This record gives sequence, structure tokens and C-alpha cells, in this order.
Amino acid sequence: MQSRQIHLVRRPSGVPVAEDFALVERALPEPEAGEVEVEGLLLSVDPYMRPRLNSDQPLDEAMLGTGIGRVVRSRDAGIAEGTLVRHGAGMRDRFVVAAAALRPLVRDPDVPLSVYMHALGATGLTAYGGLFEIGALQDGEQVVVSTAGGAVGSVAAQIAKLKGCHVVGITGSDDKVAWLREQAGIDTAINYRTQDLAAALAEATPAGIDVYSENVGGAHLDAVLPRMNVRGRIPLCGMISTYNGAGEGVRNLSEMIYRRVRMQGFVSTDLVPLTERFVADMTGWLKAGHVKYQETILDGFDRAPEALIGLFDGRNAGKMLVRLAD
Amino acid sequence: MQSRQIHLVRRPSGVPVAEDFALVERALPEPEAGEVEVEGLLLSVDPYMRPRLNSDQPLDEAMLGTGIGRVVRSRDAGIAEGTLVRHGAGMRDRFVVAAAALRPLVRDPDVPLSVYMHALGATGLTAYGGLFEIGALQDGEQVVVSTAGGAVGSVAAQIAKLKGCHVVGITGSDDKVAWLREQAGIDTAINYRTQDLAAALAEATPAGIDVYSENVGGAHLDAVLPRMNVRGRIPLCGMISTYNGAGEGVRNLSEMIYRRVRMQGFVSTDLVPLTERFVADMTGWLKAGHVKYQETILDGFDRAPEALIGLFDGRNAGKMLVRLAD
Repeated sequence: MQSRQIHLVRRPSGVPVAEDFALVERALPEPEAGEVEVEGLLLSVDPYMRPRLNSDQPLDEAMLGTGIGRVVRSRDAGIAEGTLVRHGAGMRDRFVVAAAALRPLVRDPDVPLSVYMHALGATGLTAYGGLFEIGALQDGEQVVVSTAGGAVGSVAAQIAKLKGCHVVGITGSDDKVAWLREQAGIDTAINYRTQDLAAALAEATPAGIDVYSENVGGAHLDAVLPRMNVRGRIPLCGMISTYNGAGEGVRNLSEMIYRRVRMQGFVSTDLVPLTERFVADMTGWLKAGHVKYQETILDGFDRAPEALIGLFDGRNAGKMLVRLAD
Repeated sequence: MQSRQIHLVRRPSGVPVAEDFALVERALPEPEAGEVEVEGLLLSVDPYMRPRLNSDQPLDEAMLGTGIGRVVRSRDAGIAEGTLVRHGAGMRDRFVVAAAALRPLVRDPDVPLSVYMHALGATGLTAYGGLFEIGALQDGEQVVVSTAGGAVGSVAAQIAKLKGCHVVGITGSDDKVAWLREQAGIDTAINYRTQDLAAALAEATPAGIDVYSENVGGAHLDAVLPRMNVRGRIPLCGMISTYNGAGEGVRNLSEMIYRRVRMQGFVSTDLVPLTERFVADMTGWLKAGHVKYQETILDGFDRAPEALIGLFDGRNAGKMLVRLAD
């Protein structure tokens, strides 16, 4: 039996291109005692992967990543064949792994499996915990969300609306603007590619900004900082503007002083203690139709590099996923 | 009776120059009921004044500022003639003000009056509260202090040493380096004008950085961010590198994400609730010789503009003050 894997074969310069990756076959070992064989079903691609390509991701090894799979052979008494699992085994279509490395997925039958890779997965938890835990969001506050058409931002924007906040989303296409206004129901959606961001923000935030969900950096952050209210908070979960090596530098940080702004970096794994409350809240909101989502699913394991590259072109609407099998 | 005042007469372009200011005489009114006449003794000049000159400071009015004076005529039963007071009456050598606007100064006879304008004043409170309240400093942590030869930094560096921390100071002259090593007793002092800051920091912080007392921004912050430890804190009390309009922008903010760094702006007035504890601690440290200080005192009210301009040339050793009278 073979395992197909996506390897990084050279370090990208700027935006990754197809030639930076290769599809490689490797022999699949037999599972030993305590191990299971997993067939991959869905793979996640995410902006955080880009900075890893500069050094942390080893060359000529399977790309690190997370996904959902199904146990097809088990040599562990604790996990039955057929079990759906979350894994961090990287970009492999099939693999053998210690059962202890997997987390069984408890699925609500009314929620599509793919949703467990975004609104009910790490990106949803990032949105939820970023607002409440890092951002200390209060009901009715003034909120701005960057990458509001993306997997984290679209959920953050809707959660803030559910909490009675005034919500402004920043995104990069008119399609996303339309989705945010009409489907997500936020107050104002700004297309930073076609609008003057500072002027549009000034108009859209007459009461200033209490919480800015930051995933971009650079010119976005410079436009937001002078609008922050005293004791505003900036949960910082990404800086996509810098990941491909461009980035002009942030010039308005001194605005943080008199405004007493708190900016704090975090990653989704910090938020694991919130999981139970998050899953309960989010499952309810999804089933009630209070949180809507978009997903862009590319079919076929070999399209994983294309999916990753597409993130930086804005080719995804909502969460970008690769489907390996049903 | 006349009052002499320092007015801003035009907005500076870049570093202020003498021609941006004027010495003006105004008639001094008679104190009415509830008012007092104050003779100024000491005036503070501080980096925070520079950004105000761009818009907040009105033209052709006395410069905003704080000082220590003595009540020479009183028409308020609550405050006797001869009382030493802290005031926020700006750059005036003599003025009439509501008694309620003054704070009587309780002076320890073993501490020079000028020290109440720095180590026991707003800059000392900024250093103390920045470390403990905003920076959540723990005993024995790894600390880096910017503008370590200045009024805030020199106190912050010594407080951190008193708490058993490993302390690295960044400053801009060899004289200040020598003072920080020999008088303040910190572990390493770096002259950022003559040393490669990133390389010097890497060598001086082998265990990373838990708390960075930030008063500069720009290249300083970019050099520090990649050295921050996970869950590091950056109390942000100033950004002197940006005050005169230069500043290249900060490029390394994405380092905050995985390191879970918290950066938080604050001003000294936020820390007033700490005053009692601060005064008790600091008076004890000063009298025991555990906190040393430098001060640069220019004699003569008319030298206030020169003192302010001198801050941006690094002409001060420690706190810059103007002495009007004894």
C-alpha cells in the first residue's frame, strides 16, 4: 500500500508557486500494536502555513497540516475501525499513526463534516477565543474585523453581531463585501482594494473601535490604530500582509499609548480550554442559522498546493479545504 | 506683577528649534477667593511634549507642562503661604490658580526637591507602574529597558535589578553606558548608536526577554521582538523614535503571534492608584542608595525651550529640568 504526500522541495520566494511542492509516493507501513491506519477525508490549508515554509517546514518531507480522516485499520483497543478522527499528520492521503495522536471527532449529524474544519474547528475557535478571551469583548461594543471574508474573520464578525456589537468588516473583493452584508448581516463591509481604507473606516466607525480582530497587519493596522477607543483591544491571530516578505512596516503604533490599547498575540491551541463552551455555542448558532459560512473545497489530494497558493490570491471564499474522499 | 510664559509660536517641522518658541510677559491677576499665587521652582520637560506640538498645544499660549512651586499668596483657607505644591499650570514662572488645582507636596527632608520631579514624580511612577502593573513583572525575569539612560528607563532598570531580574539597558552614548554599568549596576548596557543592536541584544539576552520597557519604537522594537519569550509583555509608555516625524515603521510585529506577546500602551495618570505604594518603596530605595539617578538642571526660566530641544539631542543625562528659583 502506498501513501501519497505533498512535500516542500524548495523554499518559496514571495508567494509560493506550484514548483515549490511535489507529490511523492511512499510505502505505507503495517500498523503495529497501538497504531491505526487512517484514510484522509479533508485537509485544511491556512495562511499560518506560509511563514513556516521559510525555515520550520523541513524540505523533502510531508507538509505539516491538520485534517479529518477515518480509521480504516485499528490495532488499538480504544479506537474502532470507522471512527472519524482529527489528525495533525500533515499532507498525506493515508498514514499509519499512534492512536494516541488522534482525537475522535464527535459529530452532530445535522452539521456537514467540512464545517468541523472551519466554523467548528481551529479557525472557529480562533475567532471565538480571540474575541472573548484575548479581546475581552463586551456586548454592544464597536468591532472591526480584518480578513472578514475569510475563515476566521467571517465567524468573528458574526459572533460579534450575535453579541449586539456594531461590526465593520474589511475584505478584498466585492463578492465578499456582498456576502458579508447580505448573508453575515454585518453593519458595514469595506473593500480595501477599491476603497480608501482610512476614509472608509472613519465613516464606518463613528463611535471608534473597541476591539479590532487583527489578521493582516501593515496598512490595515495603521488605518485602524488612530480609530481605536481608549482601552481598546487588538487580538492578533495573524499578519498575512507580512507572510510573503512584503510589508511596509507599521508607523502608527504610538497611537497605542494615549489610547491605552492592548495588542496581544495568540494561537488557537491557547484556547483549547474553551473548547466545550465553544462547541456548544457554535453548534447551536450554526443549526439555528445564526452563523453562516462559506467554504471553498478543491477535490483531489493533488490539489493541496494549489489550495495553499490560492489563499494568497484571495481565490477562496471562506475556508479553503481539500477533499480526498467522502 | 508680571508672569513670564513660554509660548509655542509656530508648529515645529521635525526636531523643534528655538524659533518655534517665544518668551512672553503677561500681567498677573490678583488672586480671588479660593485662589493662590504660586512662584515656580522647577519645571519638567519631557519627550511626551513633542507630539503635542503638532496640534494639541495651542499656538500663542503657555506651553502645557508640570512643575513644583511654592504658594506665595493664598486666598484659600486650605493652603498656607509657603506650601510646596505640584502643579500642571504649564510653562509660567509665576501664576494665579485655584487652590483645588494644586497638589501639596509631602517632602522627605532627606530627599532633594528635584527628585520629586523624576524618581519620585511622574517618570518614576511610570517606570514602577509600567513594570509591575502593565508589565506584570515577576522576580528574576529577563528584562530589557529602552532609553535606559533617561528619566523613566534609568529607574525602571534599577527597579528590575532590585527584583532580582537580569537587566539589559539600551541607550545612546558611551557616558550613559558607563553610568548604567557602574552606577546603576545593570547586567549589560548597549549603545545603539555604535553597536549593532540586534547582535548586541542576541548576545546580552541568552535567556530571551520576558519584559521589554518600550519608550522608543521603530528599529528598537524590531530588534527586540524576535528575542521575546512566550507570553512576554511590552509596557509601552513612549515612542520617541516617531515623535519628530521620522520613523521607518515596525516590521516584526508578526513575532508577537507565536510568542503570545502582549503590548499595552499606558500613561502615568493611569497609575495614580499605585501612588502610595510607589512613594513608600521609592523613598526607601532612594534613601538606602539602591536607586541612583542623574539629573540635568538648566538654570533660568528662559531656558525651558532649550531644555525641551535638548531631549531630542540626547543632551540630558537622566531627567531634564529647568530651575526657576530655590
